Amino acid sequence: MHPSLLQDSVRGCPKEIPHNEKLLSLKYESLDYDNSENQLFLEEERRMSFLGFKCLEISRWVICGLIGFLTGLIACCIDIAVENLAGVKYYVVKQNIEKFTEVGGLSISLILWAVLNSAFVMVGAVIVAFFEPGAAGSGIPQIKCYLNGVKIPRVVRLKTLVVKVCGVICSVAGGLAVGKEGPMIHSGAVVAAGVSQGRSTSLKKDFKIFEYFRRDTEKRDFVSAGAAAGVSAAFGAPVGGVLFSLEEGASFWNQMLTWRIFFASMISTFTLNFFLSIYNNKPGDLSSPGLINFGRFESDVSVCLLLSSPKPCVISLSTVCLVLNPVFNILNYWLTLFRIRYVHRPCLQVMEAMLVAPLGPDQSEDYPLQLFCADGEYNSMATAFFNTPERSVRSLFHNPPGSYNPLTLSLFTLTYFFLACWTYGLTVSAGVFIPSLLIGAAWGRLFGILLAVWAVPGKYALMGAAAQLGGIVRMTLSLTVIMVEATGNVTYGLPIMLVLLTAKIVGDYFVEGLYDIHIKLQSVPFLHLEAPATSHWLTAREVMGAPVTCFNRIEKVGTIVDVLSNTSTNHNGFPVVMPVAICGLILRSQLIVLLKHKVFVELARSRLTQRKLQLKDFRDAYPRFPPIQSIHVSQDERECMMDLTEFMNPTPYTVPQETSLPRVFKLFRALGLRHLVVVDSENRVVGLVTRKDLARYHLGKHGLEEMQLAQT
Amino acid sequence: MHPSLLQDSVRGCPKEIPHNEKLLSLKYESLDYDNSENQLFLEEERRMSFLGFKCLEISRWVICGLIGFLTGLIACCIDIAVENLAGVKYYVVKQNIEKFTEVGGLSISLILWAVLNSAFVMVGAVIVAFFEPGAAGSGIPQIKCYLNGVKIPRVVRLKTLVVKVCGVICSVAGGLAVGKEGPMIHSGAVVAAGVSQGRSTSLKKDFKIFEYFRRDTEKRDFVSAGAAAGVSAAFGAPVGGVLFSLEEGASFWNQMLTWRIFFASMISTFTLNFFLSIYNNKPGDLSSPGLINFGRFESDVSVCLLLSSPKPCVISLSTVCLVLNPVFNILNYWLTLFRIRYVHRPCLQVMEAMLVAPLGPDQSEDYPLQLFCADGEYNSMATAFFNTPERSVRSLFHNPPGSYNPLTLSLFTLTYFFLACWTYGLTVSAGVFIPSLLIGAAWGRLFGILLAVWAVPGKYALMGAAAQLGGIVRMTLSLTVIMVEATGNVTYGLPIMLVLLTAKIVGDYFVEGLYDIHIKLQSVPFLHLEAPATSHWLTAREVMGAPVTCFNRIEKVGTIVDVLSNTSTNHNGFPVVMPVAICGLILRSQLIVLLKHKVFVELARSRLTQRKLQLKDFRDAYPRFPPIQSIHVSQDERECMMDLTEFMNPTPYTVPQETSLPRVFKLFRALGLRHLVVVDSENRVVGLVTRKDLARYHLGKHGLEEMQLAQT
Repeated sequence: MHPSLLQDSVRGCPKEIPHNEKLLSLKYESLDYDNSENQLFLEEERRMSFLGFKCLEISRWVICGLIGFLTGLIACCIDIAVENLAGVKYYVVKQNIEKFTEVGGLSISLILWAVLNSAFVMVGAVIVAFFEPGAAGSGIPQIKCYLNGVKIPRVVRLKTLVVKVCGVICSVAGGLAVGKEGPMIHSGAVVAAGVSQGRSTSLKKDFKIFEYFRRDTEKRDFVSAGAAAGVSAAFGAPVGGVLFSLEEGASFWNQMLTWRIFFASMISTFTLNFFLSIYNNKPGDLSSPGLINFGRFESDVSVCLLLSSPKPCVISLSTVCLVLNPVFNILNYWLTLFRIRYVHRPCLQVMEAMLVAPLGPDQSEDYPLQLFCADGEYNSMATAFFNTPERSVRSLFHNPPGSYNPLTLSLFTLTYFFLACWTYGLTVSAGVFIPSLLIGAAWGRLFGILLAVWAVPGKYALMGAAAQLGGIVRMTLSLTVIMVEATGNVTYGLPIMLVLLTAKIVGDYFVEGLYDIHIKLQSVPFLHLEAPATSHWLTAREVMGAPVTCFNRIEKVGTIVDVLSNTSTNHNGFPVVMPVAICGLILRSQLIVLLKHKVFVELARSRLTQRKLQLKDFRDAYPRFPPIQSIHVSQDERECMMDLTEFMNPTPYTVPQETSLPRVFKLFRALGLRHLVVVDSENRVVGLVTRKDLARYHLGKHGLEEMQLAQT
Repeated sequence: MHPSLLQDSVRGCPKEIPHNEKLLSLKYESLDYDNSENQLFLEEERRMSFLGFKCLEISRWVICGLIGFLTGLIACCIDIAVENLAGVKYYVVKQNIEKFTEVGGLSISLILWAVLNSAFVMVGAVIVAFFEPGAAGSGIPQIKCYLNGVKIPRVVRLKTLVVKVCGVICSVAGGLAVGKEGPMIHSGAVVAAGVSQGRSTSLKKDFKIFEYFRRDTEKRDFVSAGAAAGVSAAFGAPVGGVLFSLEEGASFWNQMLTWRIFFASMISTFTLNFFLSIYNNKPGDLSSPGLINFGRFESDVSVCLLLSSPKPCVISLSTVCLVLNPVFNILNYWLTLFRIRYVHRPCLQVMEAMLVAPLGPDQSEDYPLQLFCADGEYNSMATAFFNTPERSVRSLFHNPPGSYNPLTLSLFTLTYFFLACWTYGLTVSAGVFIPSLLIGAAWGRLFGILLAVWAVPGKYALMGAAAQLGGIVRMTLSLTVIMVEATGNVTYGLPIMLVLLTAKIVGDYFVEGLYDIHIKLQSVPFLHLEAPATSHWLTAREVMGAPVTCFNRIEKVGTIVDVLSNTSTNHNGFPVVMPVAICGLILRSQLIVLLKHKVFVELARSRLTQRKLQLKDFRDAYPRFPPIQSIHVSQDERECMMDLTEFMNPTPYTVPQETSLPRVFKLFRALGLRHLVVVDSENRVVGLVTRKDLARYHLGKHGLEEMQLAQT
């Protein structure tokens, strides 16, 4: 039996997964980027006039505008909420200090501080751990998987969005070493998935609009726009957002789609910028887009110096790349493994989060930093520790030489490094961008100071930040553009690119990127961009699953129900044959809808007036098709026949058995397929290639390796 | 017989083409983006170790670096040559004025001026018209076609590059209303095509390196990098360059490739910047990347004003969009038609170019503008007319309010408008970017002055420039990014995007973009991004060419020679059948090499030691395979048999006959195919879909229209 991708019938808690990076889980479904061009679909498309298509195109633009607007609004809300909550916290602590310091009770204030932080973090951890574990972390690995074509359960639900937004507000206000930028990408994606469908399954509300877009192909397009809008809102980098979506979604390039993604990104940046300017009482001042802003770097000769005096740069960078990045990723890897094994109960997770909370460096926003200093004095340690991470990054970039004590800075870097490493993976919703930037900036500035060759150590800080971030997340093109857009200076492009490239090459030698580590630990069948270089040895015959369960074009209902109910195989796609040659492909979801509406040949004959099944019925059931167990089929009905002709995809893509793996891979990836039928020279079905058959092969240290498949 | 794409055996002079936009020429070959995975190829790939693939990857990076470097260098040479030639011209004229003005001979100076201009233009026109007509124009339409997958004859040859560079220097120095930016894109592409092949067919020099890259797939990847490097050098916009390549090359997105393209772009900008800074005696000052620089726009409240006071903007923009752009494109369309019919002889072409030359506004570079004014006086007309276009654009953007007299400005705009329109399409190598920007900027500033609502009319100028350029070339995403990068301010992104979008929507209503007009007039089978919306009615059965000439796996040499020699069909791809089911696909070029090396079954038996044909033999013949007529096959040899098994692609992509046109289109476009075999349910060949079968259908005013096919 062919172990096609399992439906997510067992909503696996993380603990059930045998976490091992040599395994590939079968519990993840693939998204279907290839339209099932069955008769119903073709009839609908043929009925539609040219004007109809124009209207669809316009709705797509409207939806993208809405996605951008809502994503920008959410970013704005998060920003304002964090600022106000932190404000309340500071106010309480300050009151307390003023009240107690005279009687020598500074320790009371410190305890109060820790208690407040823990309280915030607890709230954040509780909602994530108990209500929606899918909202943990930055959400970027999940969105990467979704754009790659893997359906991660519950990742684009409304509940996830709500928990994510509240969670990130709590964890940032609670002073964890986290950023609010990563979760924006996830939020944007959820907004897109919701808006584009014109209904909310969670709220049981159907607006009866955008029904045409209720399928994987369209939804995925919008989700990529949402992710881009999220990046754009977070970093004020609309082009970076587009490139992020392309880098992750990749291969399904479409000019109109890209243009819409860009539109969503632009609207999102603009919305955030506009509302924040109103909030800050400077309406119309759009000069600081994004949640984070690096401040303006003036282009000067120093950039050239960076390139002409490579020695110190190389030392500084290679230290960061060689030591800090792999250490960060490896530490986090062990920590994640530990968590998966021992910290899988929600209460334990909440407790761990609360354990980290009081350790965190804290944020002050607009509140004075001289908490424990005499008036006018300045504590550089306090600046580094008690500022918001965003501000600290900016200070490290732009403060004049001599602002920082090297000892303080190194202490800060080390502490923050371990804190950030511990924090990423906690059961709170939080991003890793800002902590990485901060560590890198501190490290870079430290080197700038120690080497003392450069007038402006802030530039070292920028390069260090790029190296650290690039080494941890291993994004390349999009990250360069994001950083260039955030610095607002194109001249920095080349050095940033070279730094990111070095960081990636060096980092890849030791360990994978942080997101890839987390994706691997979840055993997700992630498809990389190309087949492994040395896989020309393999052909479709070796990689395909065989034998395949096929249906006849007119099939007995009992057979269909039995096949669908067979939990040991749990296939999702079934070739249709007549009599032996392939004539179509039908999906489990389609069969479920057919069974639910009892589209049987005998019934159609007896009740001639019966309403014909329409595409609408499939769309209404999308995306949560009921399991086969919930559909009752009587013993009489089991003897009926079902005619699949109208509903199957009559022209599935096929390949001969001799096709090499890279060729199969290219076809699969370029068209976003879910099932690829392998046929012999007479067009008889001999096998079926699915995502997991391709994701199984990867390049290890000793050439091509094959991963094991696991049912969970 | 199936009219597959004709080989370019008749190197058609432009006059031979029945220029009609309802025709599709069959004289253009397709590029093959799909590797022919025959046994030779697979054997080579399987022999290659992991290290071998790494080396290949490194060579790709080295080549991209080289492409960037050389493109930057060429841009630098063009810039310096233009400056010096113009300098000599001004010096001569100035000498003359000083000598003759006293005796009242100003007219003599004017004549001298005109003669000098004409001389420059004549040289430029002569080399283009007589030596390499392919170097005419900006070259962007040709590169668009190449990236789209159409092989335009002679477009990436060394000779074209040399003529292009000299031509653009002459035409810019000769004071035509042209820019030197467009030709840079073409130049970059030629550099890429040359460098990546490791040899020059024109110079008969083979460096014996990069032999692996001698096929369409790889070459096209490098050409896209070259085009991006060209954009990057021209506008100092590396990200814009990448997006240009993606927008045009599209659908073959590959992350590593994109990253390499970005690398080439960065290197190119940096090289240009670096060498120009040395030339300008400010080594290391990298603040002005690109051949054109818009000057820094500070972000201020005005951007918000633009968005909050849409009325004047809308008036200004809609005027530009509604009146100027379509008029420009339509006028140029008529002019081009006229030229194709009546000005097709090289001497006539040169004469036309010389006719325009003395009319042109001129350039002064660093020479004083007060030619005819008293010391200290300032002639705004002279500024507009006698400045370099690049400088004029910058002045229009940045000069303080009140610098321009509205009457002068409107006169200038009108004159320049018609001049630019006349100039584009002359037989000189020249770009349309800068003239469009200039017209738009002047127009926008004029409106800014007349409406007088805005403190800074320079912003109107920027928006006008965007609208004009966008309306003429209809690029969207990449143009936004290019303009944002050139202004160096992300805040302008949203308004520029909205303006470009409006210009495109309005413009598309009237007439196509300038480049598309020129592509259509050449009857190029250009594939757009998606199949026409209402084409679900059509299936592969209707669009395919049938019947198809097939070969047996072991075929008689005589049959092959006869088929290849048949000039009335001139097919390029032949399915191989055994006995009736398809078992492979072989290309004309492969058969030619086989015939040339006499790979016959009988000979192989008799001479067992004969060297086996290798991939190298195919690569050596690439890309100029000899015509069949040049291969002598004796009467005895005609009776021999040829075994195609090893050389054919054993796994060509196939589709069933019922596949809808959009589905065929998607497969074709996503994989960059050249031939797609249509089979019946028993895998028998029933038809062949090629580029022209898909390009034939387009959406007209009255729904789906079909173009005629023409043999020339």
